[in-house]
Amino acid sequence: MSHRPDHEPSTASAGDAPAGFSFRIDGRDGAARTGVITTPRGAIRTPAFMPVGTQATVKGMYMDQVRALGADVILGNTYHLMLRPGAERVAGLGGLHRFGGWSGPILTDSGGFQVMSLSKLRKLSEQGVTFASHIDGSRFELTPERSIEIQGLLGSDIQMQLDECVALPNERAVIDKAMRLSIRWAERSRRAFESQPKGRALFGIVQGGDQPDLRVESARALAAMDFPGYSIGGLAVGEPQDVMLAMIETVMPHLPDDKPHYLMGVGTPDDLIGAIARGVDMFDCVMPTRNGRHGQAFSRFGKLNFRNARHAEDPRPVDETSSCPAARDYSRAYLHHLIRTEEMLGSMLVTWINLAYYQDLMAGARAAIAAGRFTDYAAEVRAGWQRGDLAPYGG
Amino acid sequence: MSHRPDHEPSTASAGDAPAGFSFRIDGRDGAARTGVITTPRGAIRTPAFMPVGTQATVKGMYMDQVRALGADVILGNTYHLMLRPGAERVAGLGGLHRFGGWSGPILTDSGGFQVMSLSKLRKLSEQGVTFASHIDGSRFELTPERSIEIQGLLGSDIQMQLDECVALPNERAVIDKAMRLSIRWAERSRRAFESQPKGRALFGIVQGGDQPDLRVESARALAAMDFPGYSIGGLAVGEPQDVMLAMIETVMPHLPDDKPHYLMGVGTPDDLIGAIARGVDMFDCVMPTRNGRHGQAFSRFGKLNFRNARHAEDPRPVDETSSCPAARDYSRAYLHHLIRTEEMLGSMLVTWINLAYYQDLMAGARAAIAAGRFTDYAAEVRAGWQRGDLAPYGG
Repeated sequence: MSHRPDHEPSTASAGDAPAGFSFRIDGRDGAARTGVITTPRGAIRTPAFMPVGTQATVKGMYMDQVRALGADVILGNTYHLMLRPGAERVAGLGGLHRFGGWSGPILTDSGGFQVMSLSKLRKLSEQGVTFASHIDGSRFELTPERSIEIQGLLGSDIQMQLDECVALPNERAVIDKAMRLSIRWAERSRRAFESQPKGRALFGIVQGGDQPDLRVESARALAAMDFPGYSIGGLAVGEPQDVMLAMIETVMPHLPDDKPHYLMGVGTPDDLIGAIARGVDMFDCVMPTRNGRHGQAFSRFGKLNFRNARHAEDPRPVDETSSCPAARDYSRAYLHHLIRTEEMLGSMLVTWINLAYYQDLMAGARAAIAAGRFTDYAAEVRAGWQRGDLAPYGG
Repeated sequence: MSHRPDHEPSTASAGDAPAGFSFRIDGRDGAARTGVITTPRGAIRTPAFMPVGTQATVKGMYMDQVRALGADVILGNTYHLMLRPGAERVAGLGGLHRFGGWSGPILTDSGGFQVMSLSKLRKLSEQGVTFASHIDGSRFELTPERSIEIQGLLGSDIQMQLDECVALPNERAVIDKAMRLSIRWAERSRRAFESQPKGRALFGIVQGGDQPDLRVESARALAAMDFPGYSIGGLAVGEPQDVMLAMIETVMPHLPDDKPHYLMGVGTPDDLIGAIARGVDMFDCVMPTRNGRHGQAFSRFGKLNFRNARHAEDPRPVDETSSCPAARDYSRAYLHHLIRTEEMLGSMLVTWINLAYYQDLMAGARAAIAAGRFTDYAAEVRAGWQRGDLAPYGG
């Protein structure tokens, strides 16, 4: 590693896959699958966790660190990037890969989710959504066509249709209406995407809240449009985990089996294990980075909150067997000190620890699926979280 | 580099110097000197700039990055460390080097300066100073003996006597009184230091504000105590640069020539060049790290403020000839974006750029002094700052 932008091609093997966008399943274990998504910018080993690089940076990380952890793909947020620095400016500077120093594949969301959760003065219509920036109040319009245009200007390798995502619980009528609007926007997104260079992919997004029949209807409608990949949106938005997992089970039989399945914005390590068991191939979530910034680490031993005084005199590293320097070479006492004194290095190190753990969890899942022992793997990692790793002087 | 704590021995050559603390002058050019301070933990090439590691971390940097820039020594702040995590706790965890992951020499201040500038409810007496923590109001006492005890518990290689530092301008009587108290505290510090392991060094600190005769009296009194090094304190506290440089010129003839001269808390690149020309060997300052966090870069082309919109579309790196990846591998447009969006990576990169520039400036000074061309070197670097490096589309 060299603390630099990442200019290395992916080391993941794509075998003899074609140069465009494709997905190959190499192993199955129950509903779980492991395989490789091939893109012109490199291969993505699945199941894959995508670190979130909201504003053209994975917060607190150098891109070469992200790459070295085994991440094959990162996510960029269309909403944030359209506000600052602006899609046209990024394009003028050579695109998002060059701008942010990440040479591998980038997946972008459509911007719709953050418009709903962050912006002000929203006005939704059949045409799209107008809103005021949460930063300076300036006005923007996001339509299916403009979202795809922005994602194209960024140079995104895997793009998302604009959709309407509603919080849960919610009235069935609201969920129904948003799901049907999202299907119409899927079709418009698909047409807008046709002018983009070959090798890029557009995913449709399943909506339908916690209503099984609406989820099925959404999945079938999108499948009929023949997208190269399918996202499951509108989950982890307030519902219990069992509802989320039930919705995944409901949807899966109606999505093309030979295309990647991406569960958006999820989740905890336990969520990931549960979703992989049900056939999900791709994930993104701010949890490892956001929680890491505030001192909460994810590890083989479960969660460690470094604000907690029980770490104050603990000379042990977080995980001496980890290949991540942050987990292996710094004492818990030092991490506690850095978090308590609000030092940047504390946020940097715990973020790094968390992204390492998420990538290790995915690597373990891929190997376990390939070996036909994913159920055992899931039980082992859960037992590790339960067992924990209290300091001898406890507390 | 490996984004880790620094566990490498210093690569600076100490020649056949003894294993304890010593200073060897290898070259002179006018009043400027270049040489090597030898300590049991490694050599320090002089003139040396010491990055400030206030709370056992150089803010926003991995220690291996700091080392790779050519820094041979870092500074720790006794005031901050005595409050959090506490000197006894650091000692229990193996000392400051192990705690913070820096294997090279560490210099600590006495804590007195921050007590005066940060703490509350201060009460100064002949005995020492009592104060309330700026964090939680808890009460502490700092005496010359306790300051040395704390620095010893931290395992500091180069320690500072407790002194009283007054702001400028100030009344002569106030300056006079603080200078005389500092001399008495120097003697007490020296006695307290006698029980520490061999190889560590204690520096006396010259005070006297902007009063030449008081500065001379302070320097003579300290020289008579035969310290292994001499600090010049109480400058860069509000006075113009010409006053600061005049005080250095006034003091130098009265300090032992064969001992290191350390100008505390200074300063801008121009301050450093001016002080080196007058015989200063060591510096520390928060400016490269603090200004860097807020987006102000120091470079061969002078200062660059990355909040400024003129960088927004500039694809050039800060300095394509730099050996520092942060200065060489990221566009100014990206740095501008990161600083404007208050991303951690912006603070990390500009801090890194600044510490690299300060180390490069010192390396250049050492080479120029050795070659007998320091005056030319000073003129060249100043011409570079004046010339600047505006983008072609200016602004």
